[in-house]
Amino acid sequence: MTRALLLPNPDDPRLTEAVTGVDHTGARVEIRVPVERALTLYLNAQEIVTMMTINDHPEYLALGYLLNQNMLKPDDVVTEVEYDEDLQVVVVRTERGTNFEQKLKKKTLTSGCAQGTAFGDLMEALEGVALPQAELRTSWLYQMTHAINTTPSLYLTAGAIHGCVLCVRGEPVCYMEDVGRHNAVDKIAGWMYREAIDPADKIFYTTGRLTSEMVIKTVRMGIPILVSRSGFTAWGVELARQVGLTLVGRAKGKRFIALAGEERIIFDQDLAFVADESQRARRKGADDD
Amino acid sequence: MTRALLLPNPDDPRLTEAVTGVDHTGARVEIRVPVERALTLYLNAQEIVTMMTINDHPEYLALGYLLNQNMLKPDDVVTEVEYDEDLQVVVVRTERGTNFEQKLKKKTLTSGCAQGTAFGDLMEALEGVALPQAELRTSWLYQMTHAINTTPSLYLTAGAIHGCVLCVRGEPVCYMEDVGRHNAVDKIAGWMYREAIDPADKIFYTTGRLTSEMVIKTVRMGIPILVSRSGFTAWGVELARQVGLTLVGRAKGKRFIALAGEERIIFDQDLAFVADESQRARRKGADDD
Repeated sequence: MTRALLLPNPDDPRLTEAVTGVDHTGARVEIRVPVERALTLYLNAQEIVTMMTINDHPEYLALGYLLNQNMLKPDDVVTEVEYDEDLQVVVVRTERGTNFEQKLKKKTLTSGCAQGTAFGDLMEALEGVALPQAELRTSWLYQMTHAINTTPSLYLTAGAIHGCVLCVRGEPVCYMEDVGRHNAVDKIAGWMYREAIDPADKIFYTTGRLTSEMVIKTVRMGIPILVSRSGFTAWGVELARQVGLTLVGRAKGKRFIALAGEERIIFDQDLAFVADESQRARRKGADDD
Repeated sequence: MTRALLLPNPDDPRLTEAVTGVDHTGARVEIRVPVERALTLYLNAQEIVTMMTINDHPEYLALGYLLNQNMLKPDDVVTEVEYDEDLQVVVVRTERGTNFEQKLKKKTLTSGCAQGTAFGDLMEALEGVALPQAELRTSWLYQMTHAINTTPSLYLTAGAIHGCVLCVRGEPVCYMEDVGRHNAVDKIAGWMYREAIDPADKIFYTTGRLTSEMVIKTVRMGIPILVSRSGFTAWGVELARQVGLTLVGRAKGKRFIALAGEERIIFDQDLAFVADESQRARRKGADDD
């Protein structure tokens, strides 16, 4: 049995905070809520973005963000990732100036907006992509979602947080959480890059919706299967079909719907042995976004 | 009884799409999913951002985005909001060049990143803010959430969508949905600006989490009370306390928790007459982000 290599640490006192207030009866209550910190990312001398994050893995977040935005190419050599806790700044340095910096310079002359550039680049990165062959056994799917719902997490402790989990067959190998749903994805991408993890046999799970952006990021990571307990958008489905990504949504208890890449699914699980989602495991809306 | 002035239109064929796939038993199924379209926003000659939106109200979205990002000041005179459906572009024109464009120009010389500027400006906009006196009766709160959960919506039709609702006492007056949670807020801000709606007696409801960004936007709109069925982040709570915003989260069925501005709450509802959230009304996780 593979062991998870990276799991949430809900006991880390830096990640949640106790706050007091009143409940619906007017009684004083104390609850824990996730922290949210500003982290500014630089690529070499270029300021890229300020992100709101729980900031448990600034280096992975920085690398993953740059990779998923196509600002860092697979052949760029990263020489250093430097995190300064006081300044709340993380700097990624590469051997040569990246192509992105030149693009940005050109772009800013006409529009000044880094975001627009990045989005065009994302689409560009999907051209000519071929995802690996793979299979998704429904027995893995149920094993995986059960494991995720019962693993101690910031979600279970403090709510209002997103989770993304990289799985091999039915087993989580990397489980990241963050207040920004895209941060959780990006931290996994950064971890995969640093640890040179092969994406071909992986399944990507997210608590978030299956939007175009989520599909693009999964494809960028080279992962052939994307699963969510949330729903779909039309463009997410369309892109997944174009690139041959297996897209499974509304995965709760024994139920799920696949809207793309269904041919990878092997229905090997006897449904009589799968429980409907229990009241406890149900994400209780504390993370409706 | 006030009537809602703007409600979702789940029957609009442009907003959802039918897609087919397979369910957990391997059977073919057809479901509806929300569309997601790219819309590029210009402020005068300046490209600002490309947003993913269901695009039901591009003009309100454009105005609200600029207001909530502090790129458009209350004293800027908007001369035209022009939407081009073919180009998927919306242009907001002002009488004079806005202060934001100058700031952006200066900023891009050093960093090229419009996002960074915007965030700093957001915080700047909170300085010296004084929210109006107001009250939140719990009877209004329960009336409001019941109305929202039972109003026909894209969420009930297609899932995977966020909703924001502007209420007066217990009654919704403007209910916007979008695939991007911030778009739903921004569309309400744009509508309020266009229709010159007084924020002082309003309650803002969101399906999304109570993050720092959501708090900042509510304060920017001048609304004294923010309610969500989702949870809190620590910074969201801290900012709300600083500016005296009433912050109510985890509002589902008879339950809620208030973590800031509790003094505005009047506990006038006999809880014996409030139902727990029904299985049907519960947002079933199709919108976990």
